[in-house]
Amino acid sequence: MRRWQPDRVEELLRHRLFALERHHLAAGDDRREAMVLRAPDWVNVIPLLPGGEVVLVRQWRFGIAAPTLEIPGGMVEGESERAAAERELREETGYLARCWRRLGEVHPNPAFLTNRCGTWLATDLEWAGEPRGDGEEEIEVVLRTLGEIPTLIASGEITHALVIAAFHHLALQPERCAP
Amino acid sequence: MRRWQPDRVEELLRHRLFALERHHLAAGDDRREAMVLRAPDWVNVIPLLPGGEVVLVRQWRFGIAAPTLEIPGGMVEGESERAAAERELREETGYLARCWRRLGEVHPNPAFLTNRCGTWLATDLEWAGEPRGDGEEEIEVVLRTLGEIPTLIASGEITHALVIAAFHHLALQPERCAP
Repeated sequence: MRRWQPDRVEELLRHRLFALERHHLAAGDDRREAMVLRAPDWVNVIPLLPGGEVVLVRQWRFGIAAPTLEIPGGMVEGESERAAAERELREETGYLARCWRRLGEVHPNPAFLTNRCGTWLATDLEWAGEPRGDGEEEIEVVLRTLGEIPTLIASGEITHALVIAAFHHLALQPERCAP
Repeated sequence: MRRWQPDRVEELLRHRLFALERHHLAAGDDRREAMVLRAPDWVNVIPLLPGGEVVLVRQWRFGIAAPTLEIPGGMVEGESERAAAERELREETGYLARCWRRLGEVHPNPAFLTNRCGTWLATDLEWAGEPRGDGEEEIEVVLRTLGEIPTLIASGEITHALVIAAFHHLALQPERCAP
C-alpha cells in the first residue's frame, strides 16, 4: 500500500472548530489531492450514577437541525484530554466525578478528519450545581439506566456514532473504576 | 429547547464529497451562526462468510495519513442505500451477497454533518472477481473471524467510529439474514 505524504498543505478556510485543507500528496512519482478537515481532538464521557443511571444530555444539533440524545463531550481545548472530559461533564451536566477511567479512543472519520475522540467513564459522581454550558449550548440533562441504553440505540433514540462507539468500548471494558 | 431554523444558508465551498455551509439561524428574536458540512448519506457493510469470517478492508486514510482496518463502505451516489452497499462491497472486496439485512443507521456527527450512515449485514457471499476499486482507492482485503472483532476494537486495531458503531448494531440485532 502506498503511503501518501503531503508535499504541500493549502489552508482553504479556518474556523474555531476546524480548518479545511487541501493536501497535495505524493507517493513516489504519483500525485493526487485530498480534502482534509483538521480538527482538535474530541472527548466524550459516560457518567454513571451509583444507582446505575447514565447522565445523558439532549441538545439541538445544527448539522441535522434536530435534537439528539447523547453523552456529554466536546473539544479538547489546549488542556489534557482528562481535563477536557472533566470540564465538559461539569459544563453540560453539573456533575463532578471522583473516579475516571479511560475506555479507549476512536477516529471519528479517518477518511477526512485528522482527529481522535477519547472516551472516559466517570463514576463516584457529585452534584456541583447547575450546568453552566459554554455560553452557546442549551442542554437538558436526561437520566436513563445503563440497561436501557441498548434499547435506546436499537430503537434509534441514540444515533450519534461517537456515542454508540463509546458504549461499545464500555461493553468491552466494563470495569467501573481505576482510581 | 429552542428549535433553531436557518434564515439563510451561505455556501462557502463545494466539493465532490461535501459542501461547507454557514447557516444563519433564528429562534424567535435570537440569531446565531453555525458551520455545517452538507454531505451525501454514507453506507457501510459487514460482509460475513459462511465460516464466520468478516471481510475487512485495509486502506490508506488521508485524514490521519495512515492505514486503517475497516469494513467496506462509502457514499450513496444517487442510488438507493442498498444499491450503494452492494456497489461498495463489490468494488472494495470483489464479493456479491445474496442476502442483505439493514442493521440500523447512525448520524456520523450531528453537531456539524447533515448526513446519516446506514449499516447493512451481507451474507451468502459469492466471489465475483478481483476488487475494482473506484479508480482512486487502494484496498487490501483482510479476513478476520467475527469472534476476533472485539479484540481488534479493544486493542485499537479497529478505530473508525462508524465501523465500531456498525458492529454494535450487529451485536444488538444478531439475526443473520432476512431474505
